[in-house]
Amino acid sequence: MPKVKIYVTLRDGILDVQGKMIHRALGSLGYENVDEVKVGKYLQLEFEDDADIDQKIKKMCEQLLTNPVIEDYTYEVE
Amino acid sequence: MPKVKIYVTLRDGILDVQGKMIHRALGSLGYENVDEVKVGKYLQLEFEDDADIDQKIKKMCEQLLTNPVIEDYTYEVE
Repeated sequence: MPKVKIYVTLRDGILDVQGKMIHRALGSLGYENVDEVKVGKYLQLEFEDDADIDQKIKKMCEQLLTNPVIEDYTYEVE
Repeated sequence: MPKVKIYVTLRDGILDVQGKMIHRALGSLGYENVDEVKVGKYLQLEFEDDADIDQKIKKMCEQLLTNPVIEDYTYEVE
């Protein structure tokens, strides 16, 4: 059964508040050599078959899994 | 500058409520051939240098980025 990994990130120019908070927290824990932190979502989907799988993944991402206005995504099929 | 990608997932046996909700929503949108959905976090960190980078990533993950009781993680350094 094909396993799909989807990585969702905020688009460039969208403020990543969670990333900024983690960056600050890392700094106060003494990790001074981190320049940037970005936070996204990681989805793993198991499909029953790989019929039209690329097309289905793209539609799912646009309809439900991501917010195309503020988010980008990439995916891998294994 | 090294870029680190960290993938955080729930440990086996921990109920993935968000994954279950997305699975159900996909079903009601007509995507019937998805068997399982798991939701995790995806973090991108930019480091200034790669001194002790593996050790630092592991410590950060245990201290702040993940909850080791319920979450697992893997990472890649680019």
